[in-house]
Amino acid sequence: MQNQKRVVIDSISPQINDGEFFIKRVVNQIVTVNSHVLTDGHDIIAASVLYKHENDKKWREARMQHVNNDEWIASFVVEKQGFYAYKVQGWVDYALNWQHGITRKIEDNQYVTSELLEGIEYIKEIAKKSSEDEKKYLKQLEVLFSNEEKYSEAIIEAQSEKLHAIFSKYPKKHLANTSKIFQVYVDRLKAQFSTWYEFFPRSSSEVEGVHGTFKDCEKLLPRVSEMGFDTLYFPPVHPIGEVNRKGKNNTTEAFEGDVGSTWGIGSKDGGHKDIHSQLGSINDFKSLIVQAKNLGIEIAMDYALQAAPDHPWVKEHPSWFKWRPDGTVQYAENPPKKYQDILPIYWESKDYKALWDECLDTLFYWIDCGVNVFRVDNPHTKPYYFWNWIINEVKKKHPDVLFLAEAFTRPKVMQQLAKQGYTQSYTYFTWRNNKHELIEYMTELTQTEQREYMRPNFWPNTPDINPFHLQGANESKYIQRYVLAATLSSSIGIYGPVFEQMISDGLPGKEEYLNSEKFQLCNYNWTKENKLTTLITKLNKIRHQNEALQQTNNIKFCTIENENLIAFYKWNDDKTNELLIVISLDDNNEQQGTVQLPLSDLGISNGHQLEVCDLITGSCYNWNTEWNYIELHPSLPFHIFKLKK
Amino acid sequence: MQNQKRVVIDSISPQINDGEFFIKRVVNQIVTVNSHVLTDGHDIIAASVLYKHENDKKWREARMQHVNNDEWIASFVVEKQGFYAYKVQGWVDYALNWQHGITRKIEDNQYVTSELLEGIEYIKEIAKKSSEDEKKYLKQLEVLFSNEEKYSEAIIEAQSEKLHAIFSKYPKKHLANTSKIFQVYVDRLKAQFSTWYEFFPRSSSEVEGVHGTFKDCEKLLPRVSEMGFDTLYFPPVHPIGEVNRKGKNNTTEAFEGDVGSTWGIGSKDGGHKDIHSQLGSINDFKSLIVQAKNLGIEIAMDYALQAAPDHPWVKEHPSWFKWRPDGTVQYAENPPKKYQDILPIYWESKDYKALWDECLDTLFYWIDCGVNVFRVDNPHTKPYYFWNWIINEVKKKHPDVLFLAEAFTRPKVMQQLAKQGYTQSYTYFTWRNNKHELIEYMTELTQTEQREYMRPNFWPNTPDINPFHLQGANESKYIQRYVLAATLSSSIGIYGPVFEQMISDGLPGKEEYLNSEKFQLCNYNWTKENKLTTLITKLNKIRHQNEALQQTNNIKFCTIENENLIAFYKWNDDKTNELLIVISLDDNNEQQGTVQLPLSDLGISNGHQLEVCDLITGSCYNWNTEWNYIELHPSLPFHIFKLKK
Repeated sequence: MQNQKRVVIDSISPQINDGEFFIKRVVNQIVTVNSHVLTDGHDIIAASVLYKHENDKKWREARMQHVNNDEWIASFVVEKQGFYAYKVQGWVDYALNWQHGITRKIEDNQYVTSELLEGIEYIKEIAKKSSEDEKKYLKQLEVLFSNEEKYSEAIIEAQSEKLHAIFSKYPKKHLANTSKIFQVYVDRLKAQFSTWYEFFPRSSSEVEGVHGTFKDCEKLLPRVSEMGFDTLYFPPVHPIGEVNRKGKNNTTEAFEGDVGSTWGIGSKDGGHKDIHSQLGSINDFKSLIVQAKNLGIEIAMDYALQAAPDHPWVKEHPSWFKWRPDGTVQYAENPPKKYQDILPIYWESKDYKALWDECLDTLFYWIDCGVNVFRVDNPHTKPYYFWNWIINEVKKKHPDVLFLAEAFTRPKVMQQLAKQGYTQSYTYFTWRNNKHELIEYMTELTQTEQREYMRPNFWPNTPDINPFHLQGANESKYIQRYVLAATLSSSIGIYGPVFEQMISDGLPGKEEYLNSEKFQLCNYNWTKENKLTTLITKLNKIRHQNEALQQTNNIKFCTIENENLIAFYKWNDDKTNELLIVISLDDNNEQQGTVQLPLSDLGISNGHQLEVCDLITGSCYNWNTEWNYIELHPSLPFHIFKLKK
Repeated sequence: MQNQKRVVIDSISPQINDGEFFIKRVVNQIVTVNSHVLTDGHDIIAASVLYKHENDKKWREARMQHVNNDEWIASFVVEKQGFYAYKVQGWVDYALNWQHGITRKIEDNQYVTSELLEGIEYIKEIAKKSSEDEKKYLKQLEVLFSNEEKYSEAIIEAQSEKLHAIFSKYPKKHLANTSKIFQVYVDRLKAQFSTWYEFFPRSSSEVEGVHGTFKDCEKLLPRVSEMGFDTLYFPPVHPIGEVNRKGKNNTTEAFEGDVGSTWGIGSKDGGHKDIHSQLGSINDFKSLIVQAKNLGIEIAMDYALQAAPDHPWVKEHPSWFKWRPDGTVQYAENPPKKYQDILPIYWESKDYKALWDECLDTLFYWIDCGVNVFRVDNPHTKPYYFWNWIINEVKKKHPDVLFLAEAFTRPKVMQQLAKQGYTQSYTYFTWRNNKHELIEYMTELTQTEQREYMRPNFWPNTPDINPFHLQGANESKYIQRYVLAATLSSSIGIYGPVFEQMISDGLPGKEEYLNSEKFQLCNYNWTKENKLTTLITKLNKIRHQNEALQQTNNIKFCTIENENLIAFYKWNDDKTNELLIVISLDDNNEQQGTVQLPLSDLGISNGHQLEVCDLITGSCYNWNTEWNYIELHPSLPFHIFKLKK
């Protein structure tokens, strides 16, 4: 037999797959819970969101407010890293119901002595748990309500705000109903707000043709820091396979001196827990991590689960690879394409537990060396449940560790990886170029369920993707792509110095870099400064100074009647920081338009005097109409206006 | 440690609250399941919907097809009443993957002897479970694939359709993943397709002022049957309370001879299991049920869980009612309104189990008398979980029994009752009058999740609702309201004979009938025939002859550029029955417009010769363009065109 509960709780949000996966937040962020809460009949109900950190014993309570049409809402702040649980509770509030009824009857001039006696029952119960002052008041009411001679006084108190407040404060929750429990995982702020720079350590030498080292990298840290980056991501730093090593420009034959792909991990010198000797020693690496940290930079490591044919795993754990009937080992392929320098892991291996453990141990090893951020290579070619397990195992011990999924693939695959636990995800931003595409994609990321579990990281380029629109592009285009990333998404990254130095020659017809560092050493002028480095530095500073740019979901696009101009409003949670951003998508011509201010979001009306200050140029304007004129030149194709009401 | 499964299953539909509630179908209907199914990497996957009736031991399998973007689909037919379970299963198909790879390599002119040897492994495994013929073929391949001399023959067979078909037929399902189980409850057809008529048995007498009896009702059955109704619903037929009995027109004082409200159930003569003696005996009632059944009519009984103050329960089970501190019993109220002739059930009663059991026993009692349909009065004022329990308990023993929820209240309350198990629901149709409202409401009912659990029953009027638009309305308006109900919804009902005789005087300013039968006897000319009875009879016949009108969800509104004309396309599952319906919403003026045919749904192109035949007038037209002229007069304000391609 079912229970007697009368309240029904339905359609709780946010939640992912009915609680199969956790939603994501960072420390001090708000979780706003919506739910349908209803009961039979006309009784007054109340509802709360109950929540607690995994280490807390007691549930805390946020009372829900009725919004409309049986929809209720409440918010709470997640103050600590780790898991929070939350659930919705609803109950018929018989005491409030009594007060509501007696009030209506008194208004209707009905005689309510019997109702006053009923009220005493509620008062007596609440008196048991209320404060001394309240108890005293309730005792008075108890006497008053049963004294017919003081009827006129009694009916005033029966309807009082004071009594209403006490009833609300001490709900009896008789026959309360409670939903299932949902979870939110709370990360440190960097999970949501991070500014990445990527370079190849082996290209860090100042001397052309000389293999860079971690010591060389140390010298570049101040530049990275001064430009405002907080995360420095290195492609793999492990020994590079010698068997079937790739030549320059991804050719299948390597010649003497060819350094191979850094993703061809493992050789006679070691595997995933070792350092490529030309970069230096493990101690050099640890020292680099410390130096970086002192400058506010975290080193992000590449985590690429695959092996060169001469990786030690192949001999030590042959069952982790697939062996063919002819006795050869299976190399990577996507028929008819072959990748002979790489062996994929055989995830169907019977020995998978040892394999998974070694993968986890590898992460622990580098975490112990000081690494707290991993950029995971092609996670979509490894099982989803493996990621769920390994990320969870790491987070249990090391909640600071963050995982960025480098999956450039189909939408549902990328979403699934995010659901299974990835902290951040690479995105399609790299290819979203015009106004319609950008708004459509941002809407998908920030206005659908994805906002709860998928944290985008916007990269204008990567070593794997030299997008057609950047190949041979002018400076204005590069500025546009950086400012779009930096203002649309709170996590961003560039692959440098090719980005800021606009080195963009591609392999013919491909979105690949010519003479890619993936297969050879490159030599850069690491001291070069240009307009891009100046603007990147300024933009990164603006991101650090404006909370509105430190989360991605709080965005609203503004109407601007020009297909080459995109405008959006950004704000922080308490709206103490509000920005209006306008970016031209035309890198050749001046563009004009009038932008519509989101007046109701700003809480102002037409005619209100608004000061808008451009954070790059320092120019301020006074706007007092809803529609305002904008003019942007390719030389500085954007405004970031701080709004001062 | 998580498992090694590589396939992920996500976003299965249909399902309600992640399987907390069942979806609904009737016998022989289709369940079409959609799901995201994906794996890591590039491997070929396959998926099935597994389903079985609750009494079946073995799961049956419907292979899913990939639609697009990792979305898969499959359908199955539910052939029997009761619960079916369904779930989605997905797996990497290693054999198909092998064939796909070797095909690409052969096309690329690669030498694939090693791949052929791999193929032998898949072939050997499948040979174990295949038919004799297939086994023979596979044995041949085994020899062929290892014979380097027959390489050119081998690579042809390796790519063959025949081998592909065998691989597909016998999937290995290694590391298959399976979703949770969802349920569909399958009712008899009437749950979805029913045509109701309601009258008050006490008004069935031919003689004015004389209380009608079941014997009188029997005489009316041929009329109800000839008009094409299959369900005859009676307001409560139980003894009527004498204490605080209501007078005519809902006045609080009853005079000598006043018959009281039929919903004031219970008196010294008995309660919910008794028959009001003026109607006849229990045997008269049983006889009526049998007579009705012989004419294809089921008697629907009112199930109203409340009591008059003199209901036997009040003395026998005082704890089922709420007693006030002054010793009086709590009557129904919605402060400041009072309903002293009714006591609500006290659902918080400690003795609730006995109460619930008695409620259930009451249903069993009437089911044993031959009743299989219950119209439940105000279900939204009784606990949701009570309904879940009692409906489930009844259905377990009596799957034919149907429950119609008379809840005219807030949307989420009505939806929740349907989720908890109600077979059918009253709707807002009663008040949806103009084109925009009708389309919006139909879209909500048929194009959202509600289509899976909420079966609407469209009533133009009820004894409780004499809608303003029908008060004093002309014949055309009545025709419109009936034809809208009869074609938009597969379940409909009218309260007669006031509807077809257009008796519509209301209480001033209220949507209530003047001199309502709810509180007094009425006398009707039961033999009267008019245009409305003629058209209702024809429309009910058309509904029985056209499967397109026997389910509600298969509807598509057609563009017609006139706010007074509404047009829609209806079809049955296999599209052997297709209708185009056009209804004028103007009861005073002629209306013209051109309607757009849904060509792609019809599977025809512009220029195709289509014959459309009006099922009322028999007129046929040949249409060969997408847009076609319609002209409707208030005298016959609709077309139901049967489409003949």
